[in-house]
Amino acid sequence: MELEFLDWLHRNVPVDPRAKLGLSDDAAVVSLAGRAEVVVTTDTITDGVDFRLEEHDPRRIGRQALGVNLSDLAAMAARPVAAIISLVLPRTGGRRLTPLELAIALYEGMLPLAEEFDVAIAGGDTNTFDGPLAISVTALGELTERGPLKRSGGQPGDWLLVTGSLGGSLLGHMLDFTPRVRESLALHERYELHAGIDISDGLAIDCSRLAAASGCGAVIFTDRVPISPDAFRLAEQEGAADRGAAALQHALGDGQDFELALAAAPNAAQTILRERPLECAVTHVGELVLEPGLWQQSGSGDRTPLKPIGWVHQ
Amino acid sequence: MELEFLDWLHRNVPVDPRAKLGLSDDAAVVSLAGRAEVVVTTDTITDGVDFRLEEHDPRRIGRQALGVNLSDLAAMAARPVAAIISLVLPRTGGRRLTPLELAIALYEGMLPLAEEFDVAIAGGDTNTFDGPLAISVTALGELTERGPLKRSGGQPGDWLLVTGSLGGSLLGHMLDFTPRVRESLALHERYELHAGIDISDGLAIDCSRLAAASGCGAVIFTDRVPISPDAFRLAEQEGAADRGAAALQHALGDGQDFELALAAAPNAAQTILRERPLECAVTHVGELVLEPGLWQQSGSGDRTPLKPIGWVHQ
Repeated sequence: MELEFLDWLHRNVPVDPRAKLGLSDDAAVVSLAGRAEVVVTTDTITDGVDFRLEEHDPRRIGRQALGVNLSDLAAMAARPVAAIISLVLPRTGGRRLTPLELAIALYEGMLPLAEEFDVAIAGGDTNTFDGPLAISVTALGELTERGPLKRSGGQPGDWLLVTGSLGGSLLGHMLDFTPRVRESLALHERYELHAGIDISDGLAIDCSRLAAASGCGAVIFTDRVPISPDAFRLAEQEGAADRGAAALQHALGDGQDFELALAAAPNAAQTILRERPLECAVTHVGELVLEPGLWQQSGSGDRTPLKPIGWVHQ
Repeated sequence: MELEFLDWLHRNVPVDPRAKLGLSDDAAVVSLAGRAEVVVTTDTITDGVDFRLEEHDPRRIGRQALGVNLSDLAAMAARPVAAIISLVLPRTGGRRLTPLELAIALYEGMLPLAEEFDVAIAGGDTNTFDGPLAISVTALGELTERGPLKRSGGQPGDWLLVTGSLGGSLLGHMLDFTPRVRESLALHERYELHAGIDISDGLAIDCSRLAAASGCGAVIFTDRVPISPDAFRLAEQEGAADRGAAALQHALGDGQDFELALAAAPNAAQTILRERPLECAVTHVGELVLEPGLWQQSGSGDRTPLKPIGWVHQ
């Protein structure tokens, strides 16, 4: 299928002046906007773990594969430049599609997202093997004048903010989310952010990672967590006795929300909350504290330990 | 296994000032030597296609995964800077190794090669799934003052040179080869090369690709092809009636040689052959011609069409 697929790629992947030679040489030359630094991230998604090929439209899977990588760039407040796509296709195809048809459908899901975020497809590699679908994307980004937003810049006393709402991503958001690239760049440019991470594994575990990287602990205000309607729906489907409590657990631990968790000094955080610079919600969901570890607090109640629940990669 | 593996990585992957944040943040920031361009390539190898986990030491497989990517950078005459490693591990491990042990063994094969070529491991992603081992590496390189060596710069009349010897890579070279990074950089710096490619799929098909990208055809002088001892060994193992002819077919079509095929004007090519600037052999193996297509010629005989045989990705 390689030749036919290359032919399809040449007809369907837009030529981008920033990514030369990618589809026709051994490597691509990617131009960065004048900076001799490149931000690079990779994420692989696989059938049976991150999606189910028999269940999900391959276009949505392709979109997801690129989206999770753009979300990592958003976490660093880097501007996306290019993506390199590696497909490992089941030899038998899937969903009654040949490997070629499957590859094309995956790209058909990726290309609109690449266009939306001005990402050049700078090349890739396509293979078939006797195994389930795996898609590995490497995304390149460039830094703004502000430099990278890191996990490690948080300080005790910082407020923790999250974008959007959390939980229940299994019902579809995990495939159809829009990475928070614009939001991250806008906030990083206009406000003094101390640290950031994307919520890929779960609010609880990802906040504990940000806190640990910053050398402090984190408290989650459990009654302020923005719970998504899908988290409630999932709790209902499961027949949970306490629907609210079950939905909160989904919001804390489901992961694949691909929202941002950000740390900023109280002043800066209050300004963000007052000025509402984003189209999506921003919620004050916790704070960084001196004591290491992860804590929860409800209303004015006591702080108690919170397990860093979340999606654990095996 | 993720935490234990991250812990192993932190203890075993050298800290490199050019690749910041890679193992501890959502993305790495890779510094390039003052140039706002990055060369990027990706290659994925999978069990049953590029290697056999039940048969081959995972350290050799790890080395191969990085090596094929460095070979692509060599093809562009780019200096390796960083690599991003994505492992998709069988949930059950393999060769009586757990997934964690397998991941470590793969890295143990990669790290010495990374050190040899001064490549920073700038991050990656590690997953398990219900399928065979797949390793996807993305390598970043920087251009020298000479810019990239492309496939497309060849001209009719150029001599085709190859490094090393070809064929029979199945007997071990495909795992243990040393990518021709030093050779490519040395030649590109000192001589006027028109075009280059690495021989990953086979001398015949890769020369036809270089020729096609350069808008011309190629002739292979079949009696000058440097046939490796392994190609003869393989021919013997197969009980070929004409051992020499069978070995030549291996040299033309086996692929996974990871040698360089280069096009240069006759003058420049003669200078290279006379000055012998490399430790490995360089052989004048053919030339570019006006007529498109791939041709063979033996001695002073007629040119006849040559099939662009080689490893065909399915």
